[in-house]
Amino acid sequence: MTFSVPAWAATSATAPLTPFTVERRDVGPKDVRIDIKFAGICHSDIHTARSEWGPSNYPVVVGHEIAGIVAEVGSEVTQYQVGDRVGVGCMVDSCGECENCVAGDEQYCRKGNTGTYNSIGADGNVTHGGYSREIVVTESFVLGIPEGIELDVAAPLLCAGITTYSPLRHWNAGPGKKVAVIGLGGLGHMGVKLAHAMGAEVTVLSQSLKKQEDGLKLGADHYYATSDPATFEKLASSFDLIINTVSASIDISAHLRLLKVDGTLVNVGAPEDPLPVNAFALIGGRRSWAGSSIGGIRETQEMLDFCAEHHLGAEIEVIPAEKINEAYDRVLASDVRYRFVIDTSTIN
Amino acid sequence: MTFSVPAWAATSATAPLTPFTVERRDVGPKDVRIDIKFAGICHSDIHTARSEWGPSNYPVVVGHEIAGIVAEVGSEVTQYQVGDRVGVGCMVDSCGECENCVAGDEQYCRKGNTGTYNSIGADGNVTHGGYSREIVVTESFVLGIPEGIELDVAAPLLCAGITTYSPLRHWNAGPGKKVAVIGLGGLGHMGVKLAHAMGAEVTVLSQSLKKQEDGLKLGADHYYATSDPATFEKLASSFDLIINTVSASIDISAHLRLLKVDGTLVNVGAPEDPLPVNAFALIGGRRSWAGSSIGGIRETQEMLDFCAEHHLGAEIEVIPAEKINEAYDRVLASDVRYRFVIDTSTIN
Repeated sequence: MTFSVPAWAATSATAPLTPFTVERRDVGPKDVRIDIKFAGICHSDIHTARSEWGPSNYPVVVGHEIAGIVAEVGSEVTQYQVGDRVGVGCMVDSCGECENCVAGDEQYCRKGNTGTYNSIGADGNVTHGGYSREIVVTESFVLGIPEGIELDVAAPLLCAGITTYSPLRHWNAGPGKKVAVIGLGGLGHMGVKLAHAMGAEVTVLSQSLKKQEDGLKLGADHYYATSDPATFEKLASSFDLIINTVSASIDISAHLRLLKVDGTLVNVGAPEDPLPVNAFALIGGRRSWAGSSIGGIRETQEMLDFCAEHHLGAEIEVIPAEKINEAYDRVLASDVRYRFVIDTSTIN
Repeated sequence: MTFSVPAWAATSATAPLTPFTVERRDVGPKDVRIDIKFAGICHSDIHTARSEWGPSNYPVVVGHEIAGIVAEVGSEVTQYQVGDRVGVGCMVDSCGECENCVAGDEQYCRKGNTGTYNSIGADGNVTHGGYSREIVVTESFVLGIPEGIELDVAAPLLCAGITTYSPLRHWNAGPGKKVAVIGLGGLGHMGVKLAHAMGAEVTVLSQSLKKQEDGLKLGADHYYATSDPATFEKLASSFDLIINTVSASIDISAHLRLLKVDGTLVNVGAPEDPLPVNAFALIGGRRSWAGSSIGGIRETQEMLDFCAEHHLGAEIEVIPAEKINEAYDRVLASDVRYRFVIDTSTIN
């Protein structure tokens, strides 16, 4: 059985998002029903709404940076109770049995995890995300949002936060390490905050110096423009880790040469087309070019706890639902510092 | 002061190699003069002889897989004495002071190491390699060849051996690890022997099954043809480590997908042109594409000791100097199993 919930949806690749009623499944024994309070706008939402990553299942309710309050729990739920502050990120299910799920890396589930939207859930229905008043999610994919982070600034942590936190942790960002973040957008600004909080020396590599003041305020120690060729000479062989948050086709080989011996450049976003990379940039310093996708559920909880401990949240601009389409245009124009968050109480 | 030594040299990018007399520096306090017995033929020799990696300093005496006997030592030499069995690899000097040299990674010397040939040495002269009767090398770049490895099969270990040993060790090949080696040539056949001796489960990924019998004899547990698309389906997400010994432009993205989560594909050779790589192949499994260049001096000694302990040497075909040009043609035609080694007593 299902129940109806107000939402905003894309009905085709070219239509603007409009009000829509989404059907949610009734709460099962292991389910949590969440009264959504805020939903961040991630660039992935736009890609999906517009079928830029292959044809989407229309109508599609996007949104995978979800923060809210538990409204109901199933009979077998043990971790959450009504009134708890919770979040949902990019995944709502996975097989739970493969080596990667068992290791806590549900994002790399061998059978493919179930995305929060535009995926097929265990019940055979298309999943719908956070641009909505309520959502029903199996307990094991619900995160607790600790006291000390407001729900609005917490929402973007569920994607932008974990996507940068996970590689920073995996590749050991911390005291004594020099970390660069390419791009100061939704992901990049969280990368800077998190790497700084972990104790690393942080450098922003941005196309221009336009956001330099912001970058330093967010915790960066240095800020360089990649449009200036002198940057690549000056910073040659100087970083332990570079997190590339830019999905555009940048010159990966040139950025690899900014790594010390044994350094790693990690792409957390990527263009669909292959990037030409000169293998000598890798060989000349035993460097690595790696990729990383969000993070596992356990690690996402760890990230939220870390953010609470360090009083970190996203820099946001809260908007009502009727401004979603305008916000999309502004995201594409890089005109947001640094994340739009929808006040979902405006969805009726 | 210098002394004259018979050698074979390339005198231009298009001329065949011919007999030549090379000048060696007199033995200084920290130098070792080596009576060269064998010199392996590495593909790099051909690239350099033919200026395929930029214009070479003609005449050039190539050869950086050198095995011989100590003939003379300088007054301050402590590690070697006349009669010792020794080798020289791809480097004959480095700054010794940068972070990488101090860490034992002289191959990544910040000032650039001094190549065994076609480099400018500390004395300002062009260095000349192993296709020669004698060579003078500073003690700290001379390796000891343990009893238990014949000098002829030891020679190729100085480049082909260390180039595969170093990444296998760095990325922890060993019991319980699944390792693939792309290409069964001079480097690849050593990669298979070494990975097997380290206790890993070894798979050869070769264009065809032509050398399958050899591969299994060398220590591979499995052998697959990459010309068969089924190979990529069957082996998806199955390796911890892949060593790519092929310099041709292969489909890196397809091979990356053969790695498990957190797996690494290491290029030890590379074409000059950038390779197109789909970043999603990295992101989809937190995979890494890395590069590795030979190995440090300390690690090269460790490799030689490991080979002695495990009774490993290269599979070779010994040739007299007058067959060098013919051997070059056969290397380019992949008609060698698996390394030509020049008997330098035939150089007069």
